[in-house]
Amino acid sequence: MSNSLGNNLKLTIFGQSHAPAIGCVIEGLPAGISFDWDAVNAFMARRAPGRSALSTPRREADVPEIVSGLNERGETCGAPLAALIANRDARSDDYERLRDLPRPGHADYAAWVKYGGHNDVRGGGPFSGRLTAPLCFAGALCLQLLAVRGVTVGARALSIAGVEDARVDSTEVTPAMLRAAASREIPVFDESALGRMRLEIEKAAQAGDSVGGVVEAFALGFPAGCGEPMFDGVENQLARAVFGIPAVRGVEFGAGFAAAAMRGSGHNDAFRFDADGAVRTRTNHHAGVLGGISTGMPVVMRAAFKPTPSIALEQDTVSLSRGENARLSAAGRHDPCIVPRAVPAVEAAMAFVLCDMLMGREKEKWT
Amino acid sequence: MSNSLGNNLKLTIFGQSHAPAIGCVIEGLPAGISFDWDAVNAFMARRAPGRSALSTPRREADVPEIVSGLNERGETCGAPLAALIANRDARSDDYERLRDLPRPGHADYAAWVKYGGHNDVRGGGPFSGRLTAPLCFAGALCLQLLAVRGVTVGARALSIAGVEDARVDSTEVTPAMLRAAASREIPVFDESALGRMRLEIEKAAQAGDSVGGVVEAFALGFPAGCGEPMFDGVENQLARAVFGIPAVRGVEFGAGFAAAAMRGSGHNDAFRFDADGAVRTRTNHHAGVLGGISTGMPVVMRAAFKPTPSIALEQDTVSLSRGENARLSAAGRHDPCIVPRAVPAVEAAMAFVLCDMLMGREKEKWT
Amino acid sequence: MSNSLGNNLKLTIFGQSHAPAIGCVIEGLPAGISFDWDAVNAFMARRAPGRSALSTPRREADVPEIVSGLNERGETCGAPLAALIANRDARSDDYERLRDLPRPGHADYAAWVKYGGHNDVRGGGPFSGRLTAPLCFAGALCLQLLAVRGVTVGARALSIAGVEDARVDSTEVTPAMLRAAASREIPVFDESALGRMRLEIEKAAQAGDSVGGVVEAFALGFPAGCGEPMFDGVENQLARAVFGIPAVRGVEFGAGFAAAAMRGSGHNDAFRFDADGAVRTRTNHHAGVLGGISTGMPVVMRAAFKPTPSIALEQDTVSLSRGENARLSAAGRHDPCIVPRAVPAVEAAMAFVLCDMLMGREKEKWT
Amino acid sequence: MSNSLGNNLKLTIFGQSHAPAIGCVIEGLPAGISFDWDAVNAFMARRAPGRSALSTPRREADVPEIVSGLNERGETCGAPLAALIANRDARSDDYERLRDLPRPGHADYAAWVKYGGHNDVRGGGPFSGRLTAPLCFAGALCLQLLAVRGVTVGARALSIAGVEDARVDSTEVTPAMLRAAASREIPVFDESALGRMRLEIEKAAQAGDSVGGVVEAFALGFPAGCGEPMFDGVENQLARAVFGIPAVRGVEFGAGFAAAAMRGSGHNDAFRFDADGAVRTRTNHHAGVLGGISTGMPVVMRAAFKPTPSIALEQDTVSLSRGENARLSAAGRHDPCIVPRAVPAVEAAMAFVLCDMLMGREKEKWT
Repeated sequence: MSNSLGNNLKLTIFGQSHAPAIGCVIEGLPAGISFDWDAVNAFMARRAPGRSALSTPRREADVPEIVSGLNERGETCGAPLAALIANRDARSDDYERLRDLPRPGHADYAAWVKYGGHNDVRGGGPFSGRLTAPLCFAGALCLQLLAVRGVTVGARALSIAGVEDARVDSTEVTPAMLRAAASREIPVFDESALGRMRLEIEKAAQAGDSVGGVVEAFALGFPAGCGEPMFDGVENQLARAVFGIPAVRGVEFGAGFAAAAMRGSGHNDAFRFDADGAVRTRTNHHAGVLGGISTGMPVVMRAAFKPTPSIALEQDTVSLSRGENARLSAAGRHDPCIVPRAVPAVEAAMAFVLCDMLMGREKEKWT
Repeated sequence: MSNSLGNNLKLTIFGQSHAPAIGCVIEGLPAGISFDWDAVNAFMARRAPGRSALSTPRREADVPEIVSGLNERGETCGAPLAALIANRDARSDDYERLRDLPRPGHADYAAWVKYGGHNDVRGGGPFSGRLTAPLCFAGALCLQLLAVRGVTVGARALSIAGVEDARVDSTEVTPAMLRAAASREIPVFDESALGRMRLEIEKAAQAGDSVGGVVEAFALGFPAGCGEPMFDGVENQLARAVFGIPAVRGVEFGAGFAAAAMRGSGHNDAFRFDADGAVRTRTNHHAGVLGGISTGMPVVMRAAFKPTPSIALEQDTVSLSRGENARLSAAGRHDPCIVPRAVPAVEAAMAFVLCDMLMGREKEKWT
Repeated sequence: MSNSLGNNLKLTIFGQSHAPAIGCVIEGLPAGISFDWDAVNAFMARRAPGRSALSTPRREADVPEIVSGLNERGETCGAPLAALIANRDARSDDYERLRDLPRPGHADYAAWVKYGGHNDVRGGGPFSGRLTAPLCFAGALCLQLLAVRGVTVGARALSIAGVEDARVDSTEVTPAMLRAAASREIPVFDESALGRMRLEIEKAAQAGDSVGGVVEAFALGFPAGCGEPMFDGVENQLARAVFGIPAVRGVEFGAGFAAAAMRGSGHNDAFRFDADGAVRTRTNHHAGVLGGISTGMPVVMRAAFKPTPSIALEQDTVSLSRGENARLSAAGRHDPCIVPRAVPAVEAAMAFVLCDMLMGREKEKWT
Repeated sequence: MSNSLGNNLKLTIFGQSHAPAIGCVIEGLPAGISFDWDAVNAFMARRAPGRSALSTPRREADVPEIVSGLNERGETCGAPLAALIANRDARSDDYERLRDLPRPGHADYAAWVKYGGHNDVRGGGPFSGRLTAPLCFAGALCLQLLAVRGVTVGARALSIAGVEDARVDSTEVTPAMLRAAASREIPVFDESALGRMRLEIEKAAQAGDSVGGVVEAFALGFPAGCGEPMFDGVENQLARAVFGIPAVRGVEFGAGFAAAAMRGSGHNDAFRFDADGAVRTRTNHHAGVLGGISTGMPVVMRAAFKPTPSIALEQDTVSLSRGENARLSAAGRHDPCIVPRAVPAVEAAMAFVLCDMLMGREKEKWT
């Protein structure tokens, strides 16, 4: 079903921006895990709104309440883990106007057709970026499961409004670099890029406009042999998950679209034995994935985010009730650039998918 | 499971390049359909090898044999449709060498780890591009189901080896343009680009090398309201399907990666009522999809293909049996550029996914 | 996944008996439905504990809180509907004893092995009959969806402790009979059986023991052509759902096990045209299902419930911590017979499965 | 989807009785397995028609052809294993008559409604018992995977036409007893019952009639901790699979329907430590399953088969084309009792489901 993800772990997300709550159910977690809830909340805080002058003024604590899945010691008990995140600072008004005038670049019109006008229009309903909060919750758990197995997942803003962070060879990315990026207001490798990105965001905001950007995510230490051929390979599943984050318009791995203009001799990554006896490649155009299966090299994914569609500038749209063209100025609280808060969502999606695959690998040891 | 696709229709693909056969099972086809088998075979022929000087000399008729799913009149009968495509011109030799020396850019090494050395190495086994034949078969059926509902799916080579076909606004693409492209040796809109592309392919082939490219696919007439939110939206499912085609390294929709550098005011597509009373957008940066749900505008997807990894040039690799570095010159028959034959595979993937979604839309009329 | 049910609608259940809450997520409900919540709560009350001298003294209001899935008018909005039911009257003590001494006839030992001792032992954890509350919630919604399409689902206690309710030919069961049964303390057709059943339950309770029984469920007005061949037929899916209710040990349809001793000429139900032009059978040994597909005749299912395993009588068991045999007297609150409260759970399971199938039928009209 | 089974292994079955072939695809088999194909064929032969005077005279070799999934050494290679079984001795005639006059007790009428008259009527189409051949093939592979892990699955005819085989306590059933039963014309424990069963079958056949029976299946050595709570427990999944075998009308486990009349003190199986340190129960009313999870005791399932609906005696039916009542005498080749050939199908279903669960258990060791 549409709101579910995963083959071994299964995540089901529910909620709307202004419903009483959003949340998720995670089936298949191993029993006996004591998660570090402070670390979970710290991860959630990276996505939460109202933490920076760059994000929407809506403030939500976004502290998940675990309603099932733990035993009396607080360990996972084998039953599905369900978590709720309350929607507190929801301001829903003028529903009829929202229902009547679909916002350009938003799901309003498509949802109006699909659900026959019964869709929840308040705050974007189930299409709100707020739905990435339960994704981040699930990802935060998976990050911990991966960490004890030596796998680090992290991401950064590769570009915002055309301003680029430092280009780095994926074979040189370290967990420390990813941790440093995560600690910054905009998660970048090169702090000098941060100021220029902030400037572009502020300029757009002042103009009643918005900007987009590209997020680049890495998995370090992910072992070879994970992922399934054809439709459940590493790329297939990561892409399916990442397109679940609102505003993503493209996903690429390794050399990505640039590979289309390369020659095979330049794109192929030669295998070599390293001194430790491991097979590695010197270059990593293949982004740690061949035939949908991991090779042990860093997994590298980039996701393109469009500029936030909610802008203060007046735009053309239609009045669905009156059947005529209309003008719309989207008031309300929104991020002039969602990329800084999207970075943990991309990390979460990658962590969930890779954790699911690593778990599935256990079955192959059955022979 | 890994080899299956679809929520309403379900496609399961099986086979290896040099197994007795490849094939697929399609569950959920409506009963009572009389497919045009000549049209199916004509579509399959666009993908089949050995038809052009640009493709591998391996020759396969690729005429699917329907082993179940039809009644005595040749109509679909409600039971799963199973089709087999024989592997005839398979030349498998020197298995031990293939098993020992993983080809750079191929799944050999990853599969060797995953399957503990038991993977089928002959001709790439299940990772061969040959597995797109059953995908094309399923897509060919879906193209017919879509056509009777007014939906046209087609694709073209947007670029090969850096040579670009004509840039066209997606709102101006017509079924006739897609049919014309399909009839060409390399499916392009602008015939003058074809010659330059062919030249680049030939130059690379002469150098023992290979080139990549970008395929752009369109769905025209696809109605608003299809696709499911979150993880089963149009982009999620198309991306999951298209990354099942070997050599795809990136997927983008509409403005795609370019959207990341745009402002919201420039990227948002304003809604307007057309004279016929339909809601449309003048521009189509959103590629006919908002919130994962179709809007009725053309669906536009681009997929980046890496250069064929099998090249005649000698490359570095490892000897898995001897545990030491080695050199490899990939003999064998291969395409110096798989893009021309990948175009129908991308069309097939898009046709299957959109047909599945259109069928799922029926349930929403239940209210 | 294990906690999910359905192909078109999807129900995911979570919770443990003494976790903060139990609940469910339902994906795929049509948009625009205004459910009758009083009727939902009335249905839930039939299952809720503490309503009768025959059931456990634990008292729970069991009023579900809808946390997502409705728009501001209270209609379904197309997003997943999530509901929570708080666990209030939970008395969990002596966890170590519960963890040490598995109760005969309970999941304690099996769960201890499966989850490595991390299972939630409080009140039976996720194996508690309490988990049928979210099932009843989902079933209550489906009963309403079915009712507007002319389908009535109901059930009765066919026998308790060997005391039988009236034998009735399934072709003569009416919605009124099912409503009348639902209104009784023990849902039976023949009120005179009720007193004898109650007597047997009380006798067993006084002896510190428990009794079982058989529930018989009916679907009237369910149209022909629903259900899928092989593994998703009416029987397959109903059986899969009903075995999710704790204590079910057998499921049969129509003549059921008795069919094994019949001859074909006696078991086959002849088809006849009725005066209204409908094809019906005079007898209904086939229980409205042939080849897994509905025939339009009443669907008839019987589920056997074992006697409640929690009994006051002292029993043999093992001490898992000490590795030696032990004795156990299960204190705590429990039903001496769960059949009266299981009847709505069986109805709910049947309603959910048939509603899911009826919805799936929409896709077949696509031709 | 309807024709698929399994969470870790996935079986997809296709075909119709008179299509060119029937077959299946099995995803998820471990790589590197060398199956004993003679043993597979021997198992298939137990189900194959034409081997006994008691079965249909249709003769089919039923030797599966493996078209994919093996490497050049004949080992599983990780890719889906696809197998075809040709339909050779198919005699299809008088299609219009078959389409017009639905046979009582058969799926003809239900399928006619479901598929709008396009269903394959030849030999029962996809509803034929012949579709159990691919199930038996998959089961035969699973029996081998289970055997190397110390698990034996087998079954016997517990009763035919009311004639009962020896009642045996499930704790006393041995692999040798199951092997002996499998070698008999009718698989029973007590050879003296066989003659009486055969007599009843012959009497019914001479009268142009048919008889039913009950199959009892056992899994010995199946370890504790397998199966998932709620809807994927041992009973849920076995029931879902077994109702996929045509003519099954009821499924029960352990004490089954008889449990409904027992008291808790009599039905509960007390846990005890055995001399070898294992926890076992003395009695096995619970059939090796509590809370859907295996306990390590023998799994015991009984499935009731109705008498073969195809009988020579003339019966009432309807003419769908003329819209009036009609008479039908089912000519054609059929088994007067399908129970002997159904025994291996039940074994296969049990073997597949338990193998799938045992494989899934691997993931739980991930903690």
